[in-house]
Amino acid sequence: MAIHGGDIYGTDIQKTVEEGKEILDFSANINPLGMPESVRQAVMTSLSAAEHYPDPECRKLKQALARRHGIKRESLICGNGGAELIYRLVYALRPKKALLTAPTFAEYEEALRQTDTECIFYEMQPDLQIREDILDEMDSSLDVMFVCNPNNPTGILTPRSLLDQILKKAEVCGILLVLDECFLDFTDQESQSLIPQAVKSQHLFILKSFTKMYAIPGIRLGYGISGNKELIEKMEKSGPCWNVSVLASEAGIAALQEVEYCEQARRLICREREKLKEGLKIFGFQVWNGQADYLFFQTPGITDLYERLLPYGILIRRCSNYRGLDKTHYRIAVKSPEANEKLLEVLRKVLTESYS
Amino acid sequence: MAIHGGDIYGTDIQKTVEEGKEILDFSANINPLGMPESVRQAVMTSLSAAEHYPDPECRKLKQALARRHGIKRESLICGNGGAELIYRLVYALRPKKALLTAPTFAEYEEALRQTDTECIFYEMQPDLQIREDILDEMDSSLDVMFVCNPNNPTGILTPRSLLDQILKKAEVCGILLVLDECFLDFTDQESQSLIPQAVKSQHLFILKSFTKMYAIPGIRLGYGISGNKELIEKMEKSGPCWNVSVLASEAGIAALQEVEYCEQARRLICREREKLKEGLKIFGFQVWNGQADYLFFQTPGITDLYERLLPYGILIRRCSNYRGLDKTHYRIAVKSPEANEKLLEVLRKVLTESYS
Repeated sequence: MAIHGGDIYGTDIQKTVEEGKEILDFSANINPLGMPESVRQAVMTSLSAAEHYPDPECRKLKQALARRHGIKRESLICGNGGAELIYRLVYALRPKKALLTAPTFAEYEEALRQTDTECIFYEMQPDLQIREDILDEMDSSLDVMFVCNPNNPTGILTPRSLLDQILKKAEVCGILLVLDECFLDFTDQESQSLIPQAVKSQHLFILKSFTKMYAIPGIRLGYGISGNKELIEKMEKSGPCWNVSVLASEAGIAALQEVEYCEQARRLICREREKLKEGLKIFGFQVWNGQADYLFFQTPGITDLYERLLPYGILIRRCSNYRGLDKTHYRIAVKSPEANEKLLEVLRKVLTESYS
Repeated sequence: MAIHGGDIYGTDIQKTVEEGKEILDFSANINPLGMPESVRQAVMTSLSAAEHYPDPECRKLKQALARRHGIKRESLICGNGGAELIYRLVYALRPKKALLTAPTFAEYEEALRQTDTECIFYEMQPDLQIREDILDEMDSSLDVMFVCNPNNPTGILTPRSLLDQILKKAEVCGILLVLDECFLDFTDQESQSLIPQAVKSQHLFILKSFTKMYAIPGIRLGYGISGNKELIEKMEKSGPCWNVSVLASEAGIAALQEVEYCEQARRLICREREKLKEGLKIFGFQVWNGQADYLFFQTPGITDLYERLLPYGILIRRCSNYRGLDKTHYRIAVKSPEANEKLLEVLRKVLTESYS
């Protein structure tokens, strides 16, 4: 079983869906508005430039990002998707001990396994929230900790006041706090971002991605922000040169111009998320109060929802490979009104079938 | 000073060249025929597919590569350029001790530094050939060795019989031989490839790239071949998921159809390489007998050739940061007849100036 969503190439879905039938991928959390036209154009225009090596220092892209966030270029590192930066960070640090929350995005632990890092887990069960007692788990034996805000797969936001406390304790204990804000753009709480703190801190690294908001997971582009110059420099060296393609770099620069598009996406997601939340509750599912562009829910007694939806070309994210979760936990993306409606319709069908 | 060629974004060239003036980049070794039209089309067509995550297992691309080389899909790993695979390999192996030739491509040593690997060097001076005495350096204290064939920056091929001996000894001593054949496509000696041996061996890893032959350094695509399943599996885990973009994957699949284009490129390169070789010798330069799409030469007494060519928009590769080389060593790409002629013309000019 794949550890991530979005694998529309797998045999499961390819075998199950009749040829020509559209696949509705609810397993990957991508902006339903699709790739902005300006990004598409930027990639096409940059094709000739792809006959040259990419800028190893990503100068133009970093300049655009620095302007966007009102920070210095030196606080930035760009990567072949956010995932690459997780590995670069782990290889740069080679941490002895790490604190992870559970459940959360699997890639942190996967990367830490490569450096034989001892991982301890802050279990968020039963409410899947980070609470103040996470501070009790933090001491100077830790080198690094990962917090995903809003969390993946639950979409739950950690209160800003608690994040401030976590950062404060991280600084006292000498822990690097890696704060994954990849999905924060979809909440209406962008003001919750700790980017302003990151550029001033030696103990905070923020992970960001272009993948979700600009619907370009197949182009691969992510970035990181930290005031810790030594960390950024080490990360530049802990992976290969030319990691950001010419096409990705130009896509990113174009994407950063898209202000209204992001606003529109946020409004759409917020509206659809609430509708979908209510729709799922009607089936008796327990739906968490997610704030991102996906929803997390539990289906008491039903462990084969993924398999039931497959024949209809609908792919959802099984969550049983997340720590502490089981076969009754699922995550679905918030998609277009039509797609969401279709999902609810098919759910109605497959759930009725099972009762008949 | 950058450790690689192809940095047309650096301030050196950007400052020196008048605005609007064309830059002739002889510092990166890219097929002068440019990106095949089919590859360009494939990228454009795949843009919509880039709204999905890439296939984490690169199934379609591996299938096309397997067919091309007549090998099994399981012997393949794809990467975000060949450079990424060097890092993945080093992180997967975490070698204690490595043997490198000198001078050679800097990325091997850069990667090995990340795992604190002890590097010993086989110095190829004065003739810059690998000779039989490299076998004396090989013993069971080594975990890995890197051989670049043809070598970068010299373009010199190591005889097949010697490579066979090296592989045999590597197998006896339990050393992983990493054979970088990224530039072998440009020689007329593709039969020299050890790919048929690699798929049968536990001690051979072949590194290949799409960058040079298909003129797509900005798209990032490379691959590796080995019969060592455990190594391939470890490498799949030693870096991030989704490392090969949708665009790169589709570009690669299209590129593999281009048989006549490659033939044409080889013929062009071979012809132009000889012309350029003769042209350089007229200036009194010592020109090595390179077989790739670049030439390596020494300019006795001249240490500022790079700087002299910059104002004309011509970028060449200074080689003084290669082990054992100095400011009189340079590498230039073999480009189109017009570009090569222009280079010789400007060389004539700047070299005459210095004597007047």
